[in-house]
Parts: sequence; structure tokens; C-alpha cells
Amino acid sequence: MSEAESSGPDGDGAGVEGTRAAAEPGGGDDSKHTLDTLGSVGELDALARIIPRLPPSEATMLGPGDDAAVLAAPDGLYVVTTDMMIHGPDFRLAWSSMRDLGFKAAATNLSDVAAMGARPTALVVALAAPAETPVSDLEALADGLREACAELAPGCGVVGGDLSVSPTLTIAVTAFGDLEGREPVRRDGARVGDVVAVSGPLGAAAEGLALLFERAVNGDGVPDARAAARLRSEHPVAVAAQLTPHPPIADGVAAALAGATSMLDLSDGLALDARRIARASGVSLDLDAAAVCMAAGVDASRLPHVIVGGEDHSLLATFPPATGPGQSLPGGFRVIGRVVEAGAEGPALLVGGRVFAARGGWDSFDEWSGGVG
Amino acid sequence: MSEAESSGPDGDGAGVEGTRAAAEPGGGDDSKHTLDTLGSVGELDALARIIPRLPPSEATMLGPGDDAAVLAAPDGLYVVTTDMMIHGPDFRLAWSSMRDLGFKAAATNLSDVAAMGARPTALVVALAAPAETPVSDLEALADGLREACAELAPGCGVVGGDLSVSPTLTIAVTAFGDLEGREPVRRDGARVGDVVAVSGPLGAAAEGLALLFERAVNGDGVPDARAAARLRSEHPVAVAAQLTPHPPIADGVAAALAGATSMLDLSDGLALDARRIARASGVSLDLDAAAVCMAAGVDASRLPHVIVGGEDHSLLATFPPATGPGQSLPGGFRVIGRVVEAGAEGPALLVGGRVFAARGGWDSFDEWSGGVG
Repeated sequence: MSEAESSGPDGDGAGVEGTRAAAEPGGGDDSKHTLDTLGSVGELDALARIIPRLPPSEATMLGPGDDAAVLAAPDGLYVVTTDMMIHGPDFRLAWSSMRDLGFKAAATNLSDVAAMGARPTALVVALAAPAETPVSDLEALADGLREACAELAPGCGVVGGDLSVSPTLTIAVTAFGDLEGREPVRRDGARVGDVVAVSGPLGAAAEGLALLFERAVNGDGVPDARAAARLRSEHPVAVAAQLTPHPPIADGVAAALAGATSMLDLSDGLALDARRIARASGVSLDLDAAAVCMAAGVDASRLPHVIVGGEDHSLLATFPPATGPGQSLPGGFRVIGRVVEAGAEGPALLVGGRVFAARGGWDSFDEWSGGVG
Repeated sequence: MSEAESSGPDGDGAGVEGTRAAAEPGGGDDSKHTLDTLGSVGELDALARIIPRLPPSEATMLGPGDDAAVLAAPDGLYVVTTDMMIHGPDFRLAWSSMRDLGFKAAATNLSDVAAMGARPTALVVALAAPAETPVSDLEALADGLREACAELAPGCGVVGGDLSVSPTLTIAVTAFGDLEGREPVRRDGARVGDVVAVSGPLGAAAEGLALLFERAVNGDGVPDARAAARLRSEHPVAVAAQLTPHPPIADGVAAALAGATSMLDLSDGLALDARRIARASGVSLDLDAAAVCMAAGVDASRLPHVIVGGEDHSLLATFPPATGPGQSLPGGFRVIGRVVEAGAEGPALLVGGRVFAARGGWDSFDEWSGGVG
């Protein structure tokens, strides 16, 4: 977003019709602008209206406003991750407002930075939207990015980006973090005897998604904004966990400071992500069913859903046994199991000592590639 | 692309039909795999086949293979830029092979890093493609990324990414660079008396695009792969300048070392980008028509096209007068004008002392938002 140097004429293209998540107050309250679209005002004018709403980054040495930004890496290292959200596979506009999308796009990338034990410092955002997208929608998306940074990672901000037209609304975020002189917390450091712990919700995002598919649709099964609004008021926690996740970003640094031996963010579900730690570390992770249920706040009947459900973006970590049950773990971490030696089956996920074989995990290729709402 | 840990079953989805740029040799030569598509094999298996083709980065301290990569910033600073390419507004599959697209996506981001006076170190690549995209196409795109890094910025590589399904082929690249202890070369440092110089082609990419629109189409004006192949053999330089630009990446560092006072990459054309330097620096840039034509390798009748044509990704810089005409400029830089005091009209682009008013520049919103080929 370094090119906002000239302004095109104000256009008056038509707004997008259809079943859209209700706009929240705050985005695009200038009535003169409400009918402007990305196509009618053009990239440069749209950027001139978006950029002031974006959060600044304390790591910025230069930018936005040149070919590239220059960021500080005081310890000589920086953490980088990228994640893209696509209309259709990743979200429905009947369920998510543009502000929700901005919030989630930031939150999911921040959690990957946190899972390295780093403090998030900056984002760059490449946004592609249909030409008929109201500029006020782009402003709302910027507001969501700003709110996520303010709530989850104060000091982190947007240092650059790109704005394009595309038939498919697409949000690509790259996030940066500062290890502050610490070693990164990798996924391959879990050792036999460590405790397994989680910070943040377990299974809530998947529960929210299941509720949305089941109840935020009209009679024909098509995603419906009014039904989604009703569902939000009835199941605010689960729906928010899916649409505007609040990962425990600060607990990434806290875990690193407490000596976490491995960590990752639960993007694909406890089953799949715990196996990643197990395989990378050459160990098995043995979860305690009761502890998992307690951490998830559910009864035993929900255990399988909790273990396979994805998109919580909670932090899964292992800690040396000295900080085990009865001892305090950092931040919001709760013990849910132990690291044990891999058995004959090789590194695996166990529950109560028995191999948990269900694949689980979120796969947008399999599970959400149908019609777009 | 940190999640390639398991493999789905090999599928046998059908290949994409239609008028496509001819596949070049080297991508997907394993016949067992030629019918695999992104949708049939899934994200993890596709990544497992793409990742080995990606170039490594010498700046990598960790990754890919975890939640995030860790990169080195030896002087405590790093340069960041991002740019997205969208099927339709930015390219036609009848004209660009997947390898071309990978090459261009890397090259255009590398030039933004170079324009800061930095050495490119790493890329992250978020790729979204239709489910029916052959995996061999994704491999070819990876080959293009690798070749661009090898040719333009040896040592630079891909340290992470994301792979998604989308109805619209979308390539979002974020590029990183190392200032190696130097100050960044900004756009606001041009001083009266400096010489204006350019390294790389001028107007060639726009000429190539005009030729493609005119002659790489069928009788109905629809982009056509066979006509594009013919055009390539007749006008290899102009077509390559548009489809696989080779910006003078190393000249970015050379310019910084030679004391460049301002620099940017010519993404939007000489007219628009020269005005950016002029406005940011509070000066005017006065181009010498004959010198511009000589630098562009064209006669005077082509001057207007050369000045407004975009997408060359050449480097435009200003240097202190001590390095002016008769003196040697670094790398491939050639003098095309002088920095002068802004006149009554304010900071402007002049040609031969007269204000050049045409807006010029590439605007995908205005000029290329029609049908997709």
C-alpha cells in the first residue's frame, strides 16, 4: 500500500447486493462515500481511505509509502509466516462481516508468530476484492485488522500491502515477529516426561462452524445472514471462536520464557497438530481425556469433537516436567497430557495410553469447497 | 508451506482443458503424476511435491517446516514488500505459462527490494489455485520462482508460504531484503542538480503488452496461446519484457553504494514513478528526450509510449551531480535527465523543460478488467 499518492474522481458505483453479514457501526460512516466501490474510485483513492485506519507498527523504521518498508530486528533475527483467506473455501460473506475477516486474518497469522515464542511486530496485507466491493467494506476490513492488533498484540501494526481487483475476495497476510534474543520454540523439541499443555479454547471454533453449517442457512441450505445473526446471539462463544478467534498471543512469549520445549498453534486441530509435534520430536503425546474435557469446558461425550476440531488457533506446547501438574504453567496454559516414548507404532497421538487414529483436522479441500455464500 | 507432513492418496482428476500457454519442459515430467490436480491430491501432498523445487534462502535460520520461518537480519533491519498477481487483472493463462508466472511474481517483488538499495534475501509465497489445477502446473510455478531467484538474486529463496484452493488463480509474494548496514534509498531524497538515471528497459513491457493485446488473440479478440507463441518468436524481447521481466536487481545495491539520493522501481511507468520521486522530494525531474530514447533503444516517435508505459520494473534513481554525464554511473544506469527546482506548477515531471502532463502508468483497474483468457 505504498502508492497512495494520487486521487481518482469519486465515483458512484452501486453497492453489492445480497445476503451479507450485518455491517457493524464505525466503518464508512461518511455518507458521501457509501456508494463508492473499489472499481469506481480505483486503487489509489481506495488506499488513501484505507491506510489511515490501519494500525502503526512500533517496529517500523520506514514505511508505508516507499517501494518497501524497513523494519527493526534488534536481535538480528525475525520470524515470518503467511496465511491466505479465500472467499468460499475459508469464509462466507453471509456469516462474516468484513470487520470479522480483517480480525481473523490478523489473528490467525499472529498465532503462528506466537507459536514460535515470538512477539508479533508487523503485518503486510495483500487484499484482492471484486471491483464492486464498497470502499466502506475495505475500511471495515482495515478496522478489523486494527482491532485484532490492538487486542491481541499491542504495538503490532500494518507496514505495507497491496490492493487488487479479483473476482474472488482474497486476503493474504504475512506476519513478522521478534524473538527478543530468545531461541525459537520449534515443534521438534518435545522430550519424554514433558507435560503437554494448551492455552486457549479447544474445539470451540469447530463447534461454531458446525453450528453455522447447521443453523445459519436458509431452507435450501444456503448461508444466510439473518440466521447467522440469530445464531450469534444464541451461541456467542462458539460462533465468535470460529469467526473472530482470539488466540492467546501473549502466551507464546510466556511459554518461551517458561522453557517450553515445543509449541505450535492449533490451526488444524489437536489430533493433527499434536501428531506433528510427536513426529517432529520422535515421541508420542499421551492426552488425558478428563483433562482435555476440562480444558475444553465440555463433558466426555464431546471429547472426539474437541480432539479433531480445527481452527482454534490456541497454543499447544510441551514443558519440562518440573512445571508439571501441581506446578504453575505460564499464562493460560493447562496440562492436558504427557510426552511418552513412541511405541511400536512410532510417534503417535495417544488418549489414555491408546493410539488415537482418527485423522481429524481441518482440510478446506475436502470439507468446504462447495457453493459460496 | 510448513505443513507438508502427511500424504493423501494419489488421485486422478482430469487435467485442465482450454487454450493455455505451451508447457515448457522440466515441470511435471513424472507421467504417473500428470493427471493429479490440487483438488485430487490435496494441499499436503501437493506441497510435498512443490517444496523440493523451491530455492533455499541463505538467510534462513529455521524453516520451512514450522509455524513460521526465522530469518537473519545481521544489521538489525530488514526490508519488506508484498505484491499480488491475479488471474484476469494481471495475467492471461493463454499468454503466460505457470513458469512465467512464478518468474514474474518473484521478479516484480525482488525489484521493490532492490529499489530500496537492499539485497533480496527471501520470499514467502501464498498461492491460491482452482481445485482442477494440475499439480504439474504448481511445480512449474515453483520452477519459475526458483529460476528467477537463481538468475536475478542468487542466495535468495522461498522460506515459507501457503497453498489454498480458489476459483481465481492468485499469487501473493512477500519479499525480504538486507540493507547490509546501509541506509535505505528512499524516494524523497532527490536534490536539485542530481542526475536522473535508469537501469533496465524502458517501455519494453508496455510494448509487449500492446503486442499481446493486438496479435496474441484469435479472430474474436480472445487471448490465444498459439498466436502468443508466434508473437514470442517474432518479438522475443518485448514479449519477454512483459511476461518474464528481468529487472536489474543487483543494480539496486550498486546504486546505493554509488550514493543514489533516491530510487524506485518502474512498476507504473516512468511518468507516474518519476512524479512520485518529484513530489516526495519537492523537486521536478527534467528528462532529456534524446537520452530517454537512447536508453529505451527507440526513435523519437516512440517517446510518449516509453514515458507512460508501465511494468518494466527497471530502476529509476537520482545521483549526485559528481557522477553526471561524462562520469560513470554504477551497473547499467544511464543518464536520462536532471533534477531541477520545482516551478510554479509544483513538483512535476518535465521533458525538455516542459511539463509532461499525461498521467500514464499502468492501472489494472482501468485497463485490464475485462474477460479473462
